[in-house]
Amino acid sequence: MKIYCAVKLNIPEKNFLKQNTGNQKVYFQDELEDDPFNTFLQCEVCFGNIERSWVEQSETLQWLQLISVGIEPYLEIGNKKVHITNLKGFFSVPVAESAISGLLSLFRSTGKLTLLKEQKTWKGAELRPSMRTLAGSKVLILGAGDIGMQIHKLLTVFGCNVQFFDKFSPLAQFSQKEELKTLFPTVDIVVGCLPENSETKNLLGEALLNRLKHQAIVVNVGRGSLIDEDVLVQKLKNGTLAGAVLDVTCEEPLPSHSPLWDCPNLVLSQHTAGGSDMELMDKIKVFHENYALFVNGMKLKNLI
Amino acid sequence: MKIYCAVKLNIPEKNFLKQNTGNQKVYFQDELEDDPFNTFLQCEVCFGNIERSWVEQSETLQWLQLISVGIEPYLEIGNKKVHITNLKGFFSVPVAESAISGLLSLFRSTGKLTLLKEQKTWKGAELRPSMRTLAGSKVLILGAGDIGMQIHKLLTVFGCNVQFFDKFSPLAQFSQKEELKTLFPTVDIVVGCLPENSETKNLLGEALLNRLKHQAIVVNVGRGSLIDEDVLVQKLKNGTLAGAVLDVTCEEPLPSHSPLWDCPNLVLSQHTAGGSDMELMDKIKVFHENYALFVNGMKLKNLI
Repeated sequence: MKIYCAVKLNIPEKNFLKQNTGNQKVYFQDELEDDPFNTFLQCEVCFGNIERSWVEQSETLQWLQLISVGIEPYLEIGNKKVHITNLKGFFSVPVAESAISGLLSLFRSTGKLTLLKEQKTWKGAELRPSMRTLAGSKVLILGAGDIGMQIHKLLTVFGCNVQFFDKFSPLAQFSQKEELKTLFPTVDIVVGCLPENSETKNLLGEALLNRLKHQAIVVNVGRGSLIDEDVLVQKLKNGTLAGAVLDVTCEEPLPSHSPLWDCPNLVLSQHTAGGSDMELMDKIKVFHENYALFVNGMKLKNLI
Repeated sequence: MKIYCAVKLNIPEKNFLKQNTGNQKVYFQDELEDDPFNTFLQCEVCFGNIERSWVEQSETLQWLQLISVGIEPYLEIGNKKVHITNLKGFFSVPVAESAISGLLSLFRSTGKLTLLKEQKTWKGAELRPSMRTLAGSKVLILGAGDIGMQIHKLLTVFGCNVQFFDKFSPLAQFSQKEELKTLFPTVDIVVGCLPENSETKNLLGEALLNRLKHQAIVVNVGRGSLIDEDVLVQKLKNGTLAGAVLDVTCEEPLPSHSPLWDCPNLVLSQHTAGGSDMELMDKIKVFHENYALFVNGMKLKNLI
């Protein structure tokens, strides 16, 4: 059996990957000088997100372990022989921590204090009346998946009143799009944790954003396409929204001319929310776990 | 009866204060043109922290409602006729939120991302390996008072392993100073929430700070005198500590020549952690509550 690794790893990570894959040959994409596609076509197993067309064209590939939760590029794929597994749940802890960090940066003025330190400027007590507590906030989380659930758990212990909107989850109090119109004026914080599809694209457009409470805060750790960024920019600049936390944007990297760079009270986490020092090692561990199932002909975890 | 208000309030706050104090005369210190001390001497009730010597000299004062938790300036006061009440528990929610915000700013690189936004610079994925999760961290909280307990509650749900050091609290796993020597090398985060006294002054001096794990993080939301700042600065600058979160410093406002301004990975919250938009209104509510007890001759809340 041959394994194709499309993930960029350092030497210790490569060695770790090879440790639990027996004596199987592992091809690392970044070491292949010419025509990696040809090498890929000889492999039964692939670790990492490759182009959809590669999967379609392979007659040898049996299992593809993605390193993302998102599966959009691989939906309704023609090649039915391939088992595809994703990283469902893998990012919920770091993403939830980054989301809460963004919220607290706004509520507790931690971002403002970071800039004041750069300027070596003491403001002290005069900042206190502009600070808020998360405690007591009413929160609506769009999407009751693993990330939404982790954010729910954390915000609840902070003393927030948290509810879910989700079309499919039994955990959700609200599942109808029409309900959002009446819900939005009642909440202090809206958190987007939705996948990208025709229902969620531009869901937070002008109509819904206009219904938010004055000084509400919008968080998005799902997909950038959820929000109409032009409307968001306008509402941050004129102060009708108290702030926003965006891990994802419509265009990434964010172009230098994007008006988001100039928005006040905006935390831009540059699609890092899923990151951590242990991220690659932990992804390899997931691969190893599924690899053991694969070689024993057992059912893989997180099959899509 | 006459009430002296030493707290600086705006007009709505002043009106709110007067609402629940019947027809009693309220003297607002900032409206008194000359000799406020003489006016104070005629008052039975005082709201706000005044000089210790004023309390000592008054023969009329019966009750002093402080707007702090700290009572250091009023310890062992000569004037035994005066009941003094503090704001025990009042700041635990905002201070705990600011402490967690500071920690997450370091762990999730939120501070770094704030500075990158100012510079309109996208780093994205390359930041991910330098990020950590709070989840899994081992934390020692010094001081199991209201603030320490609130921080304990929040960090526990983040997935941290949290223990207390406290000389008096039954909640504490550790109560002996000598134990800290062996504890310090085992923890990722130390959080100081201690009052100032001869036992706590300079407790985190060179000896204990030297015993901390490489890349540990120090938080202080108690009193500035807890930490030897010279040693802390050195350890932040040479990277043996991964960061620090200081709400309090030895000198406040922090002087412009303080080496803390230049320390990397330092969150300086400028003694704002107890602040919020509702802070003064909420303090007045505490005063009203105790005022109702006072005029009915009942036992006051949070007597010291």
